[in-house]
Amino acid sequence: MESSLEQIVGTLAVQARKASLTLMALSTAKKNAALLRIAELLDAERKYVQAENRKDILLGQEKGLSAAMLNRLELTDAVVASMIAGLREVCALNDPVGEIREMVKRPNGLMVGRMRVPLGVIAMIYESRPNVTIDAAALCLKSGNAVILRGGSESIHSNMALARILQQAFADEGIDPNAAQVVPVTDRSAVNILLAQEQYIDLVIPRGGEGLIRFVAQNSRIPVLKHYKGVCHIFVDRDADLDKATPIIINSKVQRPGVCNSLEGLLLHRSVAGEYLPLIAGILQREGVELRGCPRCLQILPEMRPAQESDWGCEHLDMILSVKVVDGLEEARAYIQQYGSQHTESIITENYSTAREFITTIDASAVMVNASTRFNDGGQLGLGTEIGISTTKLHAYGPMGLEELTTRKFVVFGQGQVRA
Amino acid sequence: MESSLEQIVGTLAVQARKASLTLMALSTAKKNAALLRIAELLDAERKYVQAENRKDILLGQEKGLSAAMLNRLELTDAVVASMIAGLREVCALNDPVGEIREMVKRPNGLMVGRMRVPLGVIAMIYESRPNVTIDAAALCLKSGNAVILRGGSESIHSNMALARILQQAFADEGIDPNAAQVVPVTDRSAVNILLAQEQYIDLVIPRGGEGLIRFVAQNSRIPVLKHYKGVCHIFVDRDADLDKATPIIINSKVQRPGVCNSLEGLLLHRSVAGEYLPLIAGILQREGVELRGCPRCLQILPEMRPAQESDWGCEHLDMILSVKVVDGLEEARAYIQQYGSQHTESIITENYSTAREFITTIDASAVMVNASTRFNDGGQLGLGTEIGISTTKLHAYGPMGLEELTTRKFVVFGQGQVRA
Repeated sequence: MESSLEQIVGTLAVQARKASLTLMALSTAKKNAALLRIAELLDAERKYVQAENRKDILLGQEKGLSAAMLNRLELTDAVVASMIAGLREVCALNDPVGEIREMVKRPNGLMVGRMRVPLGVIAMIYESRPNVTIDAAALCLKSGNAVILRGGSESIHSNMALARILQQAFADEGIDPNAAQVVPVTDRSAVNILLAQEQYIDLVIPRGGEGLIRFVAQNSRIPVLKHYKGVCHIFVDRDADLDKATPIIINSKVQRPGVCNSLEGLLLHRSVAGEYLPLIAGILQREGVELRGCPRCLQILPEMRPAQESDWGCEHLDMILSVKVVDGLEEARAYIQQYGSQHTESIITENYSTAREFITTIDASAVMVNASTRFNDGGQLGLGTEIGISTTKLHAYGPMGLEELTTRKFVVFGQGQVRA
Repeated sequence: MESSLEQIVGTLAVQARKASLTLMALSTAKKNAALLRIAELLDAERKYVQAENRKDILLGQEKGLSAAMLNRLELTDAVVASMIAGLREVCALNDPVGEIREMVKRPNGLMVGRMRVPLGVIAMIYESRPNVTIDAAALCLKSGNAVILRGGSESIHSNMALARILQQAFADEGIDPNAAQVVPVTDRSAVNILLAQEQYIDLVIPRGGEGLIRFVAQNSRIPVLKHYKGVCHIFVDRDADLDKATPIIINSKVQRPGVCNSLEGLLLHRSVAGEYLPLIAGILQREGVELRGCPRCLQILPEMRPAQESDWGCEHLDMILSVKVVDGLEEARAYIQQYGSQHTESIITENYSTAREFITTIDASAVMVNASTRFNDGGQLGLGTEIGISTTKLHAYGPMGLEELTTRKFVVFGQGQVRA
């Protein structure tokens, strides 16, 4: 059994590597045609996909999955429509493969540039949402990479159905169907076997809860792009325009509190806290946000719930906000260094030098002035769409779009030059 | 003992992380002043450094190190002069930190750019040459990174002496002396402890033989940038200008046969092999190169030594060249895919479409037309200088200069924008 599992996963990896060699040089027109063909088939085969999805839902109900998990699992008409729309969006994006931004001419006449090329084979390891299967396959195809998709065991029927559609579309367009493969077994040790295929797989991207991501990071022999969590802060500076601060804080906290770029910690400059804390606390409370404050907050608003040590740096992912009064930018920076997660940090200020210092010295994948933390998103920042957000610094820092699924090789055009 | 080793290495890592926070925002002027101060001190303290180096040489002689190793170990006046020259070169390079190449304006008015920032803490693990200690420290300082340097045990006295100079120079310029630290113990398990400090170290760069590099890659919990070997090829196409081919082949093979960008395999199009093989073989043999040919070579030149299977893909690092006749670009590409090391591949051709196809479809960190493989080098390709060459694709592919020691964070300038 063990050896046959190794065989199954090993074969996927070898096939993916082989497919990647043909994907590398595939024309943009062919990739776009395949994306549109996937969209067509998804639309035509909707009933089949939803019937397979129904099997997962029923099994999930039997297993007693939470309502939230069942909800994430379900491929409703609206979810299928958004998958189709997503495919068309990726089709419309610029193909980065083959691009050379600039070339330098060396003193000996050599022309040297750096050409964007696919990474090769990418493994995606994710949890319940089966729409990731299509989204990831689309981005990998457009960037010329083969992909191995490993979704959650609870969505195996849905994912296998989506794999059939992907492979049919590839076959219809004359592309190696192994360009996108779903791991056909739910056995957990398949992940470990996948993470050991460093000979064939160039990059692993885990998406899901912190547990999954830590598991992948700790067991992978292949490079991993990941973010563990988003503990995002807003610092309301002494020179803040408070009329800008309020809508930004509300939007950052309330618009979608369960996602990684939502606000978890509010830092108030002591010069504005006395005036502003009562005001913003009232508005946030009316929005249903529970505030947890430091001792200096409690001096201003004695009825506030005191923060526990565990509230600092906590990814609440809920309508809860930790609030702290600080002496200035230096203390804010020290706090962010200690408790932040290098995801998103924003300052509200009208002061040019303070803004500049914040931008330069805060270490996070996105640093912002007078803007909602919710903008740290591939679509919002202009990447078109994203396959995830990296909070580690190697290769990509922040949202990863098509370009982050490629690398650059050196190209050198000579006329017979030799080295002196 | 074990626990004290862990303490020593752990302390280095924590101190490096702390230093990296101040290095991140250090001005270019301060970094350049420190580079020049290191150069001054190296010159002033040359006798001290060379006396410490002498201890390593004597111990190495006692241990029976080879003449080649002792040679690499020795800090002669010429080597010290080249270290000083290297420091001045790095001083003259553009500081990439803080650079934003372009900003996009989003429809909502947000200005979005990507700012180059240091990676944080880099660990260099290398073998005998103690000049790497200074070269790596200079590149890491200029790119705003703290560095932990772990040289070979046989150069420990030299490296500790160089560390004293580095730290003195940093102290003189008001920079945290822990910006560059040498691991002060030669115990091999210190490397394993270092490779487990993923909390504090962002990147590991091993430099040395394939054994060292594999050891680091297999034991590191931290991302590694590496190249195992350089098996570089030249393909002489049917449409080659043979007057260009000859000097390029000679230069690639003979100029410095022991380095990673030297030529190891020559592929000849069957249409030119009959005419060209006898010519180039004669010239190469006069240069002292031993040729090892495929059966089709032997049909043309029966006195040639037949290649063994082990000659294909072999990194000879010597005056030996494997030679194979191929039917065309397709066979050359398949051969390079099977036996190449994704380092450097060059084609000799006058045919526009063939050149274009070679550049586009060959997967290597540098692909070249009508140029010597010896040009795959940071200095030659215009990066100024290099800290190594990466043949894996994540983060960097090819020579790594200052820019490859940085990453880019998103910076967002708003005027109160919130997400719809």
